[in-house]
Amino acid sequence: MEAKKASESFTIMNEMVLPNDTNTFGNLMGGRLMYWMDIAAGIAAAKHCNSPCMTASVDNLSFKNSIKLGNIVHIEAIVSRAFTTSMEIHLKVWGEDLLRKTKYESNEAYLTFVALDENNKPKPVPAFIPETDEQQRVYDGALRRRQLRLVLAGKMKAHDATELKALFS
Amino acid sequence: MEAKKASESFTIMNEMVLPNDTNTFGNLMGGRLMYWMDIAAGIAAAKHCNSPCMTASVDNLSFKNSIKLGNIVHIEAIVSRAFTTSMEIHLKVWGEDLLRKTKYESNEAYLTFVALDENNKPKPVPAFIPETDEQQRVYDGALRRRQLRLVLAGKMKAHDATELKALFS
Amino acid sequence: MEAKKASESFTIMNEMVLPNDTNTFGNLMGGRLMYWMDIAAGIAAAKHCNSPCMTASVDNLSFKNSIKLGNIVHIEAIVSRAFTTSMEIHLKVWGEDLLRKTKYESNEAYLTFVALDENNKPKPVPAFIPETDEQQRVYDGALRRRQLRLVLAGKMKAHDATELKALFS
Amino acid sequence: MEAKKASESFTIMNEMVLPNDTNTFGNLMGGRLMYWMDIAAGIAAAKHCNSPCMTASVDNLSFKNSIKLGNIVHIEAIVSRAFTTSMEIHLKVWGEDLLRKTKYESNEAYLTFVALDENNKPKPVPAFIPETDEQQRVYDGALRRRQLRLVLAGKMKAHDATELKALFS
Amino acid sequence: MEAKKASESFTIMNEMVLPNDTNTFGNLMGGRLMYWMDIAAGIAAAKHCNSPCMTASVDNLSFKNSIKLGNIVHIEAIVSRAFTTSMEIHLKVWGEDLLRKTKYESNEAYLTFVALDENNKPKPVPAFIPETDEQQRVYDGALRRRQLRLVLAGKMKAHDATELKALFS
Amino acid sequence: MEAKKASESFTIMNEMVLPNDTNTFGNLMGGRLMYWMDIAAGIAAAKHCNSPCMTASVDNLSFKNSIKLGNIVHIEAIVSRAFTTSMEIHLKVWGEDLLRKTKYESNEAYLTFVALDENNKPKPVPAFIPETDEQQRVYDGALRRRQLRLVLAGKMKAHDATELKALFS
Repeated sequence: MEAKKASESFTIMNEMVLPNDTNTFGNLMGGRLMYWMDIAAGIAAAKHCNSPCMTASVDNLSFKNSIKLGNIVHIEAIVSRAFTTSMEIHLKVWGEDLLRKTKYESNEAYLTFVALDENNKPKPVPAFIPETDEQQRVYDGALRRRQLRLVLAGKMKAHDATELKALFS
Repeated sequence: MEAKKASESFTIMNEMVLPNDTNTFGNLMGGRLMYWMDIAAGIAAAKHCNSPCMTASVDNLSFKNSIKLGNIVHIEAIVSRAFTTSMEIHLKVWGEDLLRKTKYESNEAYLTFVALDENNKPKPVPAFIPETDEQQRVYDGALRRRQLRLVLAGKMKAHDATELKALFS
Repeated sequence: MEAKKASESFTIMNEMVLPNDTNTFGNLMGGRLMYWMDIAAGIAAAKHCNSPCMTASVDNLSFKNSIKLGNIVHIEAIVSRAFTTSMEIHLKVWGEDLLRKTKYESNEAYLTFVALDENNKPKPVPAFIPETDEQQRVYDGALRRRQLRLVLAGKMKAHDATELKALFS
Repeated sequence: MEAKKASESFTIMNEMVLPNDTNTFGNLMGGRLMYWMDIAAGIAAAKHCNSPCMTASVDNLSFKNSIKLGNIVHIEAIVSRAFTTSMEIHLKVWGEDLLRKTKYESNEAYLTFVALDENNKPKPVPAFIPETDEQQRVYDGALRRRQLRLVLAGKMKAHDATELKALFS
Repeated sequence: MEAKKASESFTIMNEMVLPNDTNTFGNLMGGRLMYWMDIAAGIAAAKHCNSPCMTASVDNLSFKNSIKLGNIVHIEAIVSRAFTTSMEIHLKVWGEDLLRKTKYESNEAYLTFVALDENNKPKPVPAFIPETDEQQRVYDGALRRRQLRLVLAGKMKAHDATELKALFS
Repeated sequence: MEAKKASESFTIMNEMVLPNDTNTFGNLMGGRLMYWMDIAAGIAAAKHCNSPCMTASVDNLSFKNSIKLGNIVHIEAIVSRAFTTSMEIHLKVWGEDLLRKTKYESNEAYLTFVALDENNKPKPVPAFIPETDEQQRVYDGALRRRQLRLVLAGKMKAHDATELKALFS
C-alpha cells in the first residue's frame, strides 16, 4: 500500500446557512455544523484510504464565532496523520458574510475515522506524508491528541501517556 | 437567581434511525448523531438557565458501537456543572435493537453551552446542585475537563492547569 | 409469549421547534407534529411486540394549543391495550416555553399499530397489563374506540357496536 | 362574504416515495403521509377562506394499503363543509405503481382547519356549496363527525349529540 | 407497445413554500423549485413509459416571478413528445398568494427523461399522441429544442440542425 | 465599483450522495443535483457582486453520467461573464467513486443570477475580468448563450440575435 501525501486528501466544502440550520436567534446551530464537518472529514478520510470509513471520535472542539443566517460556511478538511487502521482529520471552519465582505474563524477540530473492510472490521490504511511545515507541526501533535483520546476513553492509563505527561511537567 | 438541581434539566430523546441517517453500510452517521445530541443538550441547558443558549464546545467524544438502520437512538442529557455563564452537559447515548432485544452503549460526551441575554452577550446562570453520587463524581471531574478545554483552546497555559497536572503526577 | 406491562413500552421524545417546522405565523405545523407522534408511537409499539410494526389508524386527534417556534415539544407514548395482532398507543403532547417557564397541553391521541412477520403479514402480539388506575381507565375505553374505528372504516355495523351504543343510551 | 363552491378548493398533490420516507420494510411511513396530507388539506382550506389557517383536528384515519418505495402518492383534498370559523376537509389518498400499472386505495380522512385573523383569533369563513351528489352526502355526514369530535374532545355531552345518537338507535 | 395520449401523463403537484425553501429575502430558492419540477416531470415520464426513468437534460429555463414564503407552488407536467428512448416533458409553474387572491406565472420549462430497462440501459418508449392544438404546437417545437440540446451538448453539428437553422434565416 | 477577477468568485462544493438523494435505482436524482448546483452558483455570484442575488435562468443542462449512492459530488462554480445587473455562472460537476478510484464527468451548465438592492430591484454588478484562456473562451460564448436565453424567453427576435445567427451560417 503506497503512502499518500497530505494534499491528496484535501477537501473543501461550502454551504449557505438556510433558515432551518439556525437556532432562534439566527445563528447556525452547533449540531448542524457538526453534521457538515463530519461529512467533509469523511470525504477526506475516504480520499486517503479509498475504503469505506466511519467516525471514531471527535476531539475537543470549541466554537469561537457563530455563523449567521445567509452567511457562507467554508470548511477545509485534510488528513493530519495516519495510524494503523485509523486517520486523524484536521478541520478548519470559517464563516463569511459576502455582503459585508467579512470572513471570520468559526472553529478548528480534529476528527478520527476508522477504515473498514467488507466485514465492517478495521483494515490498514496507507501511511501519511506531511508536505508543509504546518502539516508537520499538526502531525507531531497527533500522538499527544491520540493519547488524550485513549486516556479519556479509559483505554490507556494516564501514567503511560508519555506525550501528554511531557506537556504538564 | 435560585440554584437548580440536576434532575431539573434531565432530558430524554428517542429517535429511530431512518435510511437517510445512515452511511453506505447502514450505520447511523456520526454527524447525524451529533446533530441530535446537540439538540438534546441544548434543551437540557435551556431547562437549567431558562435563557436562549448556544453550543460553546464539544469535549472528546468516542463512538463505541455504531447504531444500525431501524434501531432506536436513546439519548439522555443532564447538566453536570454550572460555571459563571456556561453549563457543562453530560450526555449518554445507547442504541437499541427492539427486534433482537439488545441495548448497547454508543457513546458518552460532554458539551458546553453558554447562556445569552437579549444582546447575545453571555449572562449568568443559576448555580447547580448535584443530587446523586454519580452526579457528584461527574461534577468533580468538570473542572479538569474545563481546564483541558481551555488549554486545548490556548486560553490557559498547561502549567496553570492544576487539576490536569494532578492527573499525570 | 409473555404478557408485557404498560411501563415496558413507555417512550419519551423531546424535540425543538425549528423554523422549517412552522407555518407562516410561527406555529408548529400539524403535519410535522403528526410525523413525530407517529415515530414516538412506533417506538412504543415495537417495545411491546419486539417486531416490525406499522401504523394502522389514527384516532380523532384535536389540537388544543399550538406550539411556538423555539419551544420544546414533549411527547409521551405508551401502549394502552393489545388486541390479537394490533396495539393501541396512547400519546400525550405538551409544548414548553423554557424562557417564560410555561408548559401547556397540545393534544392527546390514540394511534393503532399492527405487528408484522417476515412476510409482512399481521402476527400475534403479547398480552398487555395496565399498572395504574389511569392506565386501567384508558384500557377500558379502548374497546369503545376500537368499535368506533371499525364502524367508521365500514368493517362493523353500528348496531353491533355494543360498547359504543351504551355511550348514547 | 360570498359563499364558495366545493370545486374552488379542490387540490391535487402528487409525491414520489423516496428512501427516507419509508420504514425498515420499504413502506411509506404513516407519519410522513400525514405530513403531506396536512399540507394538501391546508392548501384546500386556504383556497376556501383566503386566510391563514391551521389544523384543528384529524378525524379517525385508517390506512388500508401501505404505499411502496418508488410508488406515487396521489392526494386529493377538497372542503366538505364550512362551519362558523372552521372548515372540514375531505382527503382521499391512493398509491400508484407505474411499473406494474396498479393503483390502490391508501386511505380516506377528514381534517378540520380553523381560519385565523391577524391576531391569530378564529375568524368567519365563507359558506360552502356542495356541487355533486357525493359532495352532498359527505356534507350531510359532517355534522355527525363534528359531534363525534366534540364528544371525544369533551366539549359536548354524548346525550346532546343528536346526529350521533340517531346512528345507534 | 401502444401509443399514449398526452392526457395520460398529465401530473399536478402543489407545494407550500416553507421557511427552509426560501433564500434570505423570503423567496423560493431556484434550486428548491428545480427539485420539485424534476420530481413532477419524473412522474409524468413514468406515467407515459411505465418504466423507471431518469433526467437526461433541462432546457433553458427562465424564472419570471419569484414565489414568496407561504405562497402555493402549482406545477403542471405533461409529456410533450416521445423519441425512441426518451421523452420531452413540458412544465408550467405558477405561484399563488391565497390571501391576496393573486396567481402569477413563475416559469415554463422542458425536461428530457430517458426510460431504462433492468440493466439501466435506455429502452424504447411508447409513441405519443398530442390531443389539443397547444399540445400539437409544443410537439412541433420539440424537434427544434432537441437539435438545440444536441448542438449544445456537442453531439450534433450546427449546420446539420435543419430545424434550428430555419429559425435564423 | 471595481472590476473583479474570475478567480475571486471561484467556489468548490463537495457533497456525498446519501440514500435520500437517490432515485429507486441508486443514482443521484437530477433535481437534488440541481438544488446543490443552484447553491454553489449562488455563492459564486454573491462573491462577485457582494449583494443578495437570485437565480434568473438555467441554460441547457445535460446529464452525461449519473452519480451513484455513496459517491462524492464535486461541483466547481465560477462567474464567466458579468452584464449590467446579471452574472453568468459556469458550473462543472464530477462524480467520484473513492473506493474504485474513478472520477467521471456528470455535467456542465450555465446559470444566470441577478443582483438585488434593498428593494429587491436589480442593481449594477462589478465588471468581470477573465484570467485564463479557457475563461476567455467561455466569456466569448456568453453573449451567444445570452441571446439564446432572450430568444427562448421571447424577449429578443431571432433575426436580431446576431451572435446566434453567425453560428448557423
